[in-house]
This record gives sequence, C-alpha cells and structure tokens, in this order.
Amino acid sequence: MMKPTNALNRLIKALTVLPNVGPKSAQRMAYQLLQNKRDGAEELLNALQQALQTVRHCRLCNTLCEDEVCSVCADPERDPARLMIVHMPVDVASMEAAHCHDGLYFVLMGQISPAQGMDLSHIAVDKLVARLQESAVTEIIIATNFTAEGDATAYVLSELFKDLPYRVTRLARGMPLGGELEYVDAGTLAQAVYERRQMK
Amino acid sequence: MMKPTNALNRLIKALTVLPNVGPKSAQRMAYQLLQNKRDGAEELLNALQQALQTVRHCRLCNTLCEDEVCSVCADPERDPARLMIVHMPVDVASMEAAHCHDGLYFVLMGQISPAQGMDLSHIAVDKLVARLQESAVTEIIIATNFTAEGDATAYVLSELFKDLPYRVTRLARGMPLGGELEYVDAGTLAQAVYERRQMK
Repeated sequence: MMKPTNALNRLIKALTVLPNVGPKSAQRMAYQLLQNKRDGAEELLNALQQALQTVRHCRLCNTLCEDEVCSVCADPERDPARLMIVHMPVDVASMEAAHCHDGLYFVLMGQISPAQGMDLSHIAVDKLVARLQESAVTEIIIATNFTAEGDATAYVLSELFKDLPYRVTRLARGMPLGGELEYVDAGTLAQAVYERRQMK
Repeated sequence: MMKPTNALNRLIKALTVLPNVGPKSAQRMAYQLLQNKRDGAEELLNALQQALQTVRHCRLCNTLCEDEVCSVCADPERDPARLMIVHMPVDVASMEAAHCHDGLYFVLMGQISPAQGMDLSHIAVDKLVARLQESAVTEIIIATNFTAEGDATAYVLSELFKDLPYRVTRLARGMPLGGELEYVDAGTLAQAVYERRQMK
C-alpha cells in the first residue's frame, strides 16, 4: 500500500489553512503544484515569504501595508473628518473598490461575539481610541458586517462613543442592487420595508 | 485611492497557480493568510519549501516520492507482473485509495493530444520502455482518463505495444457505482449498453 510521502502530506495539511479548502481540494492543489506547476509553486513560495516578511499593520488605521503608514492614511486628499470602522483589511479593499468613501478607515482586526465570549479585548479598541484622540474626526461610520458578531460589535462601539462628540452612523440595510423580491431572504426584505425611504 | 501593497499583489497573483483559484478567491486567500492565519501561513511556507526540495520522481515508476524509489516499487508484496499506466501521480493515489490494484505503476506525467500537437515526446515514453525492459511485466493495464487526450494516449500506447508479448488491457467503461440512468450522460449510457456483460 502506497502512502503519500511525508513532505506531501505536510503540504496537503498546510494547504487547508486556505479558506474553503478541505483535505480533498488540498490534495488536488498539492499534487498540481508538484506535478506540473513547479515554477508557479516556487513563485508562490517566494511571494508568501516576501508577504510574511514585509506586510504589517498601518500605525494609524491598522490595515495591512508595507510601510509604517498605509497609502490611504498618507493620502492628503482623503477627508480626515470621516472615519469608517471595518472588521478586516479585506473590507477596506472592498470599500475602496466601490469608490464610495473618501474618508479614512480603522480596521478592528476582530469582532465582538458575546456567544463565544469575545469582548472588547478581541478588537483593537486601544489603538482606535488613540487614533481618535489625535484626529480631526467628526463622523464615525460603523461598517461592520450585518451578522450577529458585526451587530454586536456595532452596538458595543456605539455605546463606547455615546458621550463623545462624534456623529455615529452605520451602513444602510436593505435590498441588494439588482435584488429581486422573490429571491431575497425574509430578513433582508423585512429590513427593507422597516427602513423604507420616503420618495416624495 | 488605496492600492493593495506590492507584496500582497504578488501573493494574490501567485495564489492563482492553484487549481480553480481565480483572482477573487486568491484575494480572499491572501488576506486570510495575512489577516488572521499567520501561523498557518508560516507552516504553508515551510511545507511548500520542504516539498519543493524533497519531492522528486521515482526512478522506476516516475511517480512523486522522496526517495530514489517510491514505496510501491520498493514493496516486495506487490505483483511485478501487472503494470498499470496512469497520467499523473494523483491517479496513483486515487487507485491506491480504491485498493483494487496490487501490481506496479508507471506515471506518464503527460498526455498525448493530437489537437494540441502533443505527441509521444510529451509523455515519459523512454522511461517507460526502459522500465519494461528490466521488468517481469506480463500485463499492461492502461488506466489513462476517458477524455479525448486519455483516449489518444491509450491508443498510441496500445500501438506501441502491439508487437510486444504483453497482454494489454484498459479500464472498463460503464455506469458509475450508484449511478441512475436518469442522471447519467448519454455517452456513458451508450458505452454501458455497448459493453454490457452477460449475466448467465
């Protein structure tokens, strides 16, 4: 009976760190890398090494970047009055791709989840408070996810800012662009009715 | 406007070497690795490095292994009379998982595709011939895929062995285990009728 080699087994196991990659996909990936994508595998090795060595957190907004301060925080064109709080660096990338926020960001690098005993210590709240103290922020836009954890985080943050002189807002909820009533889940539909906008 | 960092962009591009990973999945993977899976990313880095350094081809059967000869070829319990020819090392793993072949293997590391101008030079045919010359093989089981390329490879190999004293067979075609007529494609169904077995 043939066993996969130790190095191969280790690689298969290591690949399951990737999102949505189980043992079966990881096996396919490992074989593909070693069978006929050796050059690509070498490049992946070097890219991963470089990223792990150089990518760190922005001193100001906590997102991932290669310098002390990220390109958004360093950009004098951005509006320093509006600070958007997000869960993860990938959310900054999504928001930037939508071209709908020209203020600054703060990345929590975590969420609050009462069910899992994750409280304020699981988000970068000290860094956020320090950030607010040395800034010209007037509006805080809470852009956490619309999940149980995102809602809990938004609530705790709004409590935190309650007595502070900031306008605090949260992203609107409602129908997605192109959404059809027939295919949208009941919760979204109910929220869209509940938060309906006056047209005239 | 924030741009992803250079190291991050390089990692995203490098991750698309993985099967079924496009730019969008690669971005999710890269962020996940750097956001909250740093330990896993370090392990992936080391596992990939070890695999690229140590995994090579078996001198006899051409599969991936860490020694000069793989564990199947080195196993005295395997029947040296039956040699199964497959496309890739992953096929050896699949066949071994099915526990249905106790002979030896040969891995072509390629396929013949007349449409893409890929001929005998795209498979390890010299190594296969050398393997046969110093072996006790009596039956060659061609276990290439049932695709256009696999069929072409099987045909060319059967021509190659035509005047040699081997029994040459190919995997059976037919209904998959648990297959229902309603859901099986027409080609498979036709093949299952064409190669129907006598029951009594």
